[in-house]
Amino acid sequence: MTTLDDLPIRDDLRGLSPYGAPQLDVPVRLNTNENSYPVPEPVVEAIGKAVAAELRDLNRYPDRDAVALRADLADYLGHGLTADQVWAANGSNEIQQQLLQAFGGPGRTVLGFTPAYSMHPLLALGTGTAWIPGARDADFGLTVADAVAQVRAHRPDVVFLCSPNNPTGTALDPAVVAAVLAEAPGMVVVDEAYAEFARPGTVSALAVLPGHPRLVVTRTMSKAFGFAGGRLGYLAADPAVVQAVQLVRLPYHLSALTQAAARAALAHRDALLGTVSAIMEQRDRIVAELRARGHRVADSDANFVLFEVGGDRQLRLGASDAAPRPGAVDQAAAWRTLLAAGVLVRDVGLPGWLRVTAGTPAETDAFLSAMEKLS
Amino acid sequence: MTTLDDLPIRDDLRGLSPYGAPQLDVPVRLNTNENSYPVPEPVVEAIGKAVAAELRDLNRYPDRDAVALRADLADYLGHGLTADQVWAANGSNEIQQQLLQAFGGPGRTVLGFTPAYSMHPLLALGTGTAWIPGARDADFGLTVADAVAQVRAHRPDVVFLCSPNNPTGTALDPAVVAAVLAEAPGMVVVDEAYAEFARPGTVSALAVLPGHPRLVVTRTMSKAFGFAGGRLGYLAADPAVVQAVQLVRLPYHLSALTQAAARAALAHRDALLGTVSAIMEQRDRIVAELRARGHRVADSDANFVLFEVGGDRQLRLGASDAAPRPGAVDQAAAWRTLLAAGVLVRDVGLPGWLRVTAGTPAETDAFLSAMEKLS
Repeated sequence: MTTLDDLPIRDDLRGLSPYGAPQLDVPVRLNTNENSYPVPEPVVEAIGKAVAAELRDLNRYPDRDAVALRADLADYLGHGLTADQVWAANGSNEIQQQLLQAFGGPGRTVLGFTPAYSMHPLLALGTGTAWIPGARDADFGLTVADAVAQVRAHRPDVVFLCSPNNPTGTALDPAVVAAVLAEAPGMVVVDEAYAEFARPGTVSALAVLPGHPRLVVTRTMSKAFGFAGGRLGYLAADPAVVQAVQLVRLPYHLSALTQAAARAALAHRDALLGTVSAIMEQRDRIVAELRARGHRVADSDANFVLFEVGGDRQLRLGASDAAPRPGAVDQAAAWRTLLAAGVLVRDVGLPGWLRVTAGTPAETDAFLSAMEKLS
Repeated sequence: MTTLDDLPIRDDLRGLSPYGAPQLDVPVRLNTNENSYPVPEPVVEAIGKAVAAELRDLNRYPDRDAVALRADLADYLGHGLTADQVWAANGSNEIQQQLLQAFGGPGRTVLGFTPAYSMHPLLALGTGTAWIPGARDADFGLTVADAVAQVRAHRPDVVFLCSPNNPTGTALDPAVVAAVLAEAPGMVVVDEAYAEFARPGTVSALAVLPGHPRLVVTRTMSKAFGFAGGRLGYLAADPAVVQAVQLVRLPYHLSALTQAAARAALAHRDALLGTVSAIMEQRDRIVAELRARGHRVADSDANFVLFEVGGDRQLRLGASDAAPRPGAVDQAAAWRTLLAAGVLVRDVGLPGWLRVTAGTPAETDAFLSAMEKLS
């Protein structure tokens, strides 16, 4: 039998496994930061109607430029944005892949501050862009001075920032975005997949777009909108950036069904985003409860929480020695214990830490109860 | 105002325009090889029902591996194929991009025999793969000896073959596929986007798959299935090839809506493919009528016809001097004349030649009538 090793795949792919969290059939799935709330019935009906209206003409290619959808997305984002400043694709992964194809690629570099979204280095690999794994503080923070120093040292063609950051959950200080933008010689991409869950007062990089043509803000409908199965990511940037990704996008990349379904979802944004405050409540409840039990927990502006499984339960994140220490609880073992209790969380490969999605109150109950098995 | 030139895009993208035929609002659109027949009402209903069943759970990510869809596609293809030998994506463009990401990329080469599908060099550009523009005969043919000599000369990591070829329309001699496969050091991709329209007796490269793990056959539902708006391309190959593309595919690249809609379309394949013979009739009618009028016309196994606008009307394709000659009619001017008559065809950049899609009988009437304006 032929194996992968027998094929002439690229050397830099040899030995790798496909990216992706285990898709296990478990009662409580809190591992991929989905929105736990199903699409409300009136929105189901509206999307169904919008999609049905497209079906007869599926023999025709879709609008290659998805102009109507982009106008709707611009309207949702506000900040005076218009369709020519917005671009959409099948998830923000595809958006970010297109950005690397246009501004990264062979002979170019992309810097990210790890731990961050784990697809970023894989998107670099897939586009032939050299990945530079920048660092964060021991407590997962990123200061202006540290970010600027790393950009200065590497002069990357593209910088990825995440705000709120995944897997840590904390939004960036806007001063970091401004400083990186001032220092970086190339493009600065702020991944705001979880922006809608940010704590009050958090500033989006969208506010910084005017006058900054090298800044790109990426978003997704997978999280707050509860539209993960519909696959819709997008960016906001200067119109020239939209023109740039159009040079590398696959023609007709976005199906007529995707465009229609996303537009219907956006038209019912109030109903869909109605779950956000309930999720934030559960998020804050998880943070508070885990801290009360002595775990260190990262501040969260997202729909998930990064927590230390064991460790010194007197300490909180922000203390100077928050790095994983010898003797930290094996997070992989803890992950298995939680799974055995019917709760699937995410092991993001940070020694001693796990990430849990904030979902329904019942899911929080199940998670917090399963956590007691770790003691 | 910022322009594309002000941004740090890749040097090899500078000066390019986005790929894509003009999307013009014209009565008779015969420029993108769409299937001219709308989706039949019973199939519309079936797809609508299948999609509606997914909507409530759109908050969840789709099946990352699209296993059920791949099983359905394997069943459609026959040849004893199973789901582990099939992979699906948002159009065969994405399939071929994934193949280049896995087997091409920086430092590697891909050879195609031009004129062929015009996206192939763009996919090479987008993945950092060096594109080698191989040649075809003066009459657009490709012999075993010629193909083998070019593969031997360039030793490409990937070879693209098109059968039926786009824009010429003619299926490859299976001996060419076999010979290229024997000579090529790397992967051989046979793009069979138009396979369902081939003339009786044409052999698919699917028949050659057993025992050839470096062979990949790509297909699409955009043409014969009339599913261009649904965006579904796929490949058949050794299971190891499927594993290879899974290393570079974006996670959750295929939406739950796409998977459901494509499965419903496949379940109603008889109704959808019922248009194929009618389209082949119009294709054969266009070929015969243009030849009767003295145009040279390439043999077509597809749903389109490549014809010489002017030239020596005594000659037919296959004659030894079939290359464009000085004095050939300017195809761009002819394209504009046809457009003014309400018929949109495709100028594929071959001096003196144009490509027209075979659609409904009425569309053929309109095209043949508009062609009289050229005399």
